[in-house]
Amino acid sequence: MHIYRAHIIDTPTPKAFRIIPNGYVAVADNGIIDGVYDTLPESLSQAPLTDLGDRLLIPAFCDMHIHAPQYPNMGIAMDLELLPWLNTYTFPQEARYADFDYAQRMYSRFVHSLWLQGSLHSAIFATIHAPATLCLADLLDKAGLSAFVGLVTMDRNCPPTLCHSADEAISDTLALIQHLQGNSRVKPIITPRFIPTCSPDMLTRLGQIAAEQHIPVQSHLSENKGEIEWVKQLEPQSRHYGDAYDRYGLMGQTPTLMAHCCMSSSEEQELLRQRGVMMVHCPSSNLNIATHTAPIRHYMDTGQRLALGSDVSGGHTPSMMQVMLYAIQVSKLYYTQSEGQTPFLKLSEVFWMATRSAGSFFGQVGCLQQGYTFDALVIDDRRLHGSEYSLDQRLERFVYTGDDRDIIHRFCCGNALPEPDCQ
Amino acid sequence: MHIYRAHIIDTPTPKAFRIIPNGYVAVADNGIIDGVYDTLPESLSQAPLTDLGDRLLIPAFCDMHIHAPQYPNMGIAMDLELLPWLNTYTFPQEARYADFDYAQRMYSRFVHSLWLQGSLHSAIFATIHAPATLCLADLLDKAGLSAFVGLVTMDRNCPPTLCHSADEAISDTLALIQHLQGNSRVKPIITPRFIPTCSPDMLTRLGQIAAEQHIPVQSHLSENKGEIEWVKQLEPQSRHYGDAYDRYGLMGQTPTLMAHCCMSSSEEQELLRQRGVMMVHCPSSNLNIATHTAPIRHYMDTGQRLALGSDVSGGHTPSMMQVMLYAIQVSKLYYTQSEGQTPFLKLSEVFWMATRSAGSFFGQVGCLQQGYTFDALVIDDRRLHGSEYSLDQRLERFVYTGDDRDIIHRFCCGNALPEPDCQ
Repeated sequence: MHIYRAHIIDTPTPKAFRIIPNGYVAVADNGIIDGVYDTLPESLSQAPLTDLGDRLLIPAFCDMHIHAPQYPNMGIAMDLELLPWLNTYTFPQEARYADFDYAQRMYSRFVHSLWLQGSLHSAIFATIHAPATLCLADLLDKAGLSAFVGLVTMDRNCPPTLCHSADEAISDTLALIQHLQGNSRVKPIITPRFIPTCSPDMLTRLGQIAAEQHIPVQSHLSENKGEIEWVKQLEPQSRHYGDAYDRYGLMGQTPTLMAHCCMSSSEEQELLRQRGVMMVHCPSSNLNIATHTAPIRHYMDTGQRLALGSDVSGGHTPSMMQVMLYAIQVSKLYYTQSEGQTPFLKLSEVFWMATRSAGSFFGQVGCLQQGYTFDALVIDDRRLHGSEYSLDQRLERFVYTGDDRDIIHRFCCGNALPEPDCQ
Repeated sequence: MHIYRAHIIDTPTPKAFRIIPNGYVAVADNGIIDGVYDTLPESLSQAPLTDLGDRLLIPAFCDMHIHAPQYPNMGIAMDLELLPWLNTYTFPQEARYADFDYAQRMYSRFVHSLWLQGSLHSAIFATIHAPATLCLADLLDKAGLSAFVGLVTMDRNCPPTLCHSADEAISDTLALIQHLQGNSRVKPIITPRFIPTCSPDMLTRLGQIAAEQHIPVQSHLSENKGEIEWVKQLEPQSRHYGDAYDRYGLMGQTPTLMAHCCMSSSEEQELLRQRGVMMVHCPSSNLNIATHTAPIRHYMDTGQRLALGSDVSGGHTPSMMQVMLYAIQVSKLYYTQSEGQTPFLKLSEVFWMATRSAGSFFGQVGCLQQGYTFDALVIDDRRLHGSEYSLDQRLERFVYTGDDRDIIHRFCCGNALPEPDCQ
């Protein structure tokens, strides 16, 4: 057992922050939180204690949609919308991961960035390249991070340099699953890129693997008008884009993440909700790629399961704090357009999405409560004059004006994470 | 004469970046740029030279709308729209500047922040408090920054703690003008807060001072629906909000900044354009305060004079790089809504707004060209792996993903600025 003392802040529910000034978290040797207290129980008075002083202790962030190979493109190529952006900038960049040395170097930077930003849990798209994807998984593992890693599959409508056969896609997916067998932190996730680049044969077989091996699924859904139209042409028998995934067993038959859902029809929304699919809202990416933004207040009110994603490099920042702000700001556009009828998101709601709600995809993750794994960030906000503010204001100022400089310790699954190598 | 060697990047026009790899800037002893060269002329071969190596040299940023007293509120109080936000959070905060010691401490932080962010030119709202405002001006001067500083005037519809009489407003405004007489970098600007808090008598007298002493003017215009309705009631004889300022000689009779202009009617737009009033677009603030965002592409196309403002603390960030991004992102909303008919802003266009276009308010400022004052930032982008990218990509990545850590030197009016004190 080990005790940490700090100002504890989290969001067990989206309604409000739970704040325990000078509280105590008791962490068992297996990394699970044994108890959280405002005064230390007598029974724990002999346990070793780390006093973090006037620091904030918050849950680590979950980035539920990020493209690792696009990390080098972060902050460039912001002048096209989705489909031409993919063809002009993104596919050529991803094709470079056929070069293992390049992949290793860039993925070490990517993993370092997750660590730096406190995104200790993530759901990651790699590329079609198996050696590079295994390397990414190994780097995540070595860094002590928790992640779902997907070998991206695409066998149609993509450049020859970034196209594999369905056979290759399946065998490489199986190899990744095999490679991560028994790993409790880094896990495989079935990752068809999106319907336009995936043949019915490949989707069918991916759905079979998901079902047989109980592997989760991630993909993109209803991000952009042009994309939705394209899916209609490619899958005329489907009632909507989401239905196309569903027909192949890739829509909640196992735990599923669907990024964007910006323009989901009510029928599609209903399917997502029924299936408990986690919608991953990527507001910074939606703004950058000039996509219609998602009606997240409506999704919250109708009981959708929600998370946030940086969507690097459609998103220009890997910071989940920035992504939270964009989520609030985008929701304020709906507030303005509705003449104040649609309430905007509160900070506690987006924080909950980035921690407690997203965390449920990993198990008991995203909260500093008994039974949850100890996944936490220690915030030193002296740079932001934290001591002059109330604790709720300190959290708010950290999210709105802080950055990685203010995160001084990172814990994942109970372990303090040292800074990983970065080439 | 002193020579600086670096990769020179600026925007003489909004259309594109001008990039001179390994170029030379020759700065005369008076701080004015004597010449810019891709190879050093023989005549300058003996002049002292600072080789900045593989760094970028860019114009310093201009933050054309920022509220210094609201700096401590940055990143908090983001849950209300304009008028209740003013009354609940902002006015009580500003009232604290009656306390000179508090003002001195907070203004030292504010000035440090401008320096840190490379916002070496700015147009600043202070409060109604004369001693605090003179202190702010002195701190700016001591730091070597260039700024217009306004004593905010408000004599109606405001809390008693933040209300002065028209007589006081006028005499304190005159005292500030007197205090800054002969200062070439820190200058006074007449600053009625906005029509709702300013009586006709006070506005009349402010307009007279502007005209008699050739002092520029700054205020707020057409930010929010509720505000515009209120102005209609208060000034029924005015054709529109802008006309209300105009009737008092506060709309371009001297150089004028009008922040926001989110909902300006075509008649108001025409008045702004005719008068050469500089519209200050504050996109991050508009999103935070849930204001209708401004149609900046339309304003560019119709020849409005444009600048950008952080509008701290309606804006949550003092970084003009972040503000540039928000300007692009907000313009993409118009692109999306217009089904691609309204082009979004390019990076060179928002960079031009934040440097060359805004800089014109200060004189020959905002460009690294002959005849301009040497106002520049030196960017070391090794943290962003700059050397692996082209120069235009390096600039783009700095703006999208960099921050104050990457600014290693700051020059204003030819002088290298050391880090100012921060209490």
